[in-house]
Amino acid sequence: MVVLKSVDELLNFRANLNGSVGFVPTMGALHDGHMSLIKRAVSENENVIVSVFVNPTQFLPGEDLAKYPRREEADIKICELCGAAAIFMPEANELYFDDEPLVLAPARLAGILEGKTRPGHFDGVLRVLTKLFNLVKPNNVYMGKKDAQQLIIVQNMVKTMFMPLNIVPCEIIRESDGLALSSRNAYLSEEEKCNALRISRSLFNASNLIKSGELDTKKIKEKMLGTLEPLQVNYVAVVDRNFKELSAVELGNTIILVAAYVGKTRLIDNLWV
Amino acid sequence: MVVLKSVDELLNFRANLNGSVGFVPTMGALHDGHMSLIKRAVSENENVIVSVFVNPTQFLPGEDLAKYPRREEADIKICELCGAAAIFMPEANELYFDDEPLVLAPARLAGILEGKTRPGHFDGVLRVLTKLFNLVKPNNVYMGKKDAQQLIIVQNMVKTMFMPLNIVPCEIIRESDGLALSSRNAYLSEEEKCNALRISRSLFNASNLIKSGELDTKKIKEKMLGTLEPLQVNYVAVVDRNFKELSAVELGNTIILVAAYVGKTRLIDNLWV
Repeated sequence: MVVLKSVDELLNFRANLNGSVGFVPTMGALHDGHMSLIKRAVSENENVIVSVFVNPTQFLPGEDLAKYPRREEADIKICELCGAAAIFMPEANELYFDDEPLVLAPARLAGILEGKTRPGHFDGVLRVLTKLFNLVKPNNVYMGKKDAQQLIIVQNMVKTMFMPLNIVPCEIIRESDGLALSSRNAYLSEEEKCNALRISRSLFNASNLIKSGELDTKKIKEKMLGTLEPLQVNYVAVVDRNFKELSAVELGNTIILVAAYVGKTRLIDNLWV
Repeated sequence: MVVLKSVDELLNFRANLNGSVGFVPTMGALHDGHMSLIKRAVSENENVIVSVFVNPTQFLPGEDLAKYPRREEADIKICELCGAAAIFMPEANELYFDDEPLVLAPARLAGILEGKTRPGHFDGVLRVLTKLFNLVKPNNVYMGKKDAQQLIIVQNMVKTMFMPLNIVPCEIIRESDGLALSSRNAYLSEEEKCNALRISRSLFNASNLIKSGELDTKKIKEKMLGTLEPLQVNYVAVVDRNFKELSAVELGNTIILVAAYVGKTRLIDNLWV
């Protein structure tokens, strides 16, 4: 596996690849969730490129850009073990220029939930992904359902901007106790990890309610809020696959979402039913 | 030559092309200026695709979107005569969707001159070109120097977003009397055409002044304003190739620009020295 630090190195490497290219864009601090993306990409493509870039434009002022976990050496080893052909780890000045176009995420899709709490976040995500997609020219891009709204917004961009690639949504990976894997879990104390379980538990409760026939989203959300107490909840939402709010669950077309603070750490999780 | 009306037709056509692809994006009403772009593209690429699309998002409210000249049958014949492989003529609903990302042109480059008079214009240009570039996947894109600021802004986008294509700047084509060709010349009466000559004449005067050793841009602009009278001048500017204002002409790195109204018609022209 090769470690690519500059845009020129990446372009040279890419120009010499034959066969299909799978791409896994990440912000590093790779965990089992990322590994599942990389392994799936390796199983479905002749070449896999992983990017590790803590993208400054998707962090808001006051967010955790500076302390976001960075583990370059471990990330390189993980990518190698998973069978990636290359890892791309650029500095910000390789990707960003002084006076350049901006991308604004779709107004409706990016104006709710994560986008409402983190205005500008999805603009930064689409901006860096546009650059990375143009550089890597992947056939298939592997993204986790953990960031459900991001996934839907990126799929929207690929469709509406006619990007010549395929987005592959991948399942959420959880600890055996249910906690969804996230690089931000590294911020949690042991006690907080225990409290954080309320998030996945609220989703499993919702799933069980639905299985028992309850489709009224108001009742489902009330039940979830009960499970989440005493966490500071940012939102609980039940939406369809286009992120339109639902009053009744539509089986096969519904996503249940939670964002909540555990101590100072903001965590998100969701379930597709 | 084939006439492609839908995105699907274009994608199918493109998927079956071998060899290099040259692309000439236009708003139709093709004239000798466009023909020179198409012919150059044909001479430098194995396949040439011309798009004809009067892009609504680059017109401001109150501009001439509705009356912009449309000559589909003539455009098809011209493309065929010039040796294009295909002409792509979509309806707006083929390219645009309800809730989609926007592109904002670079703040500095798009905040001056044309961008100042026509706020949002370059956003619309970059938005449609991003779509068209992703669809056509050209090796080379042919654009006229007539729209100098547009050319520089598109080159900026291609560089900073790492689009895998090459922009080829092409010379301005003029009537024998000096008038730069433009689809908007169709709006001019005979008398107005005569008045419009003041625009190119002001540029040729500037060029002669420079040849005689005058590099002071303030004096050059004063002389030009004299020639332009009594036209309503929008701007006269002397900038470098990055569109930074110059106090002294830098030979080989300067563009002189004029925007002025001839009757109700706004015309632009420029000279690279």
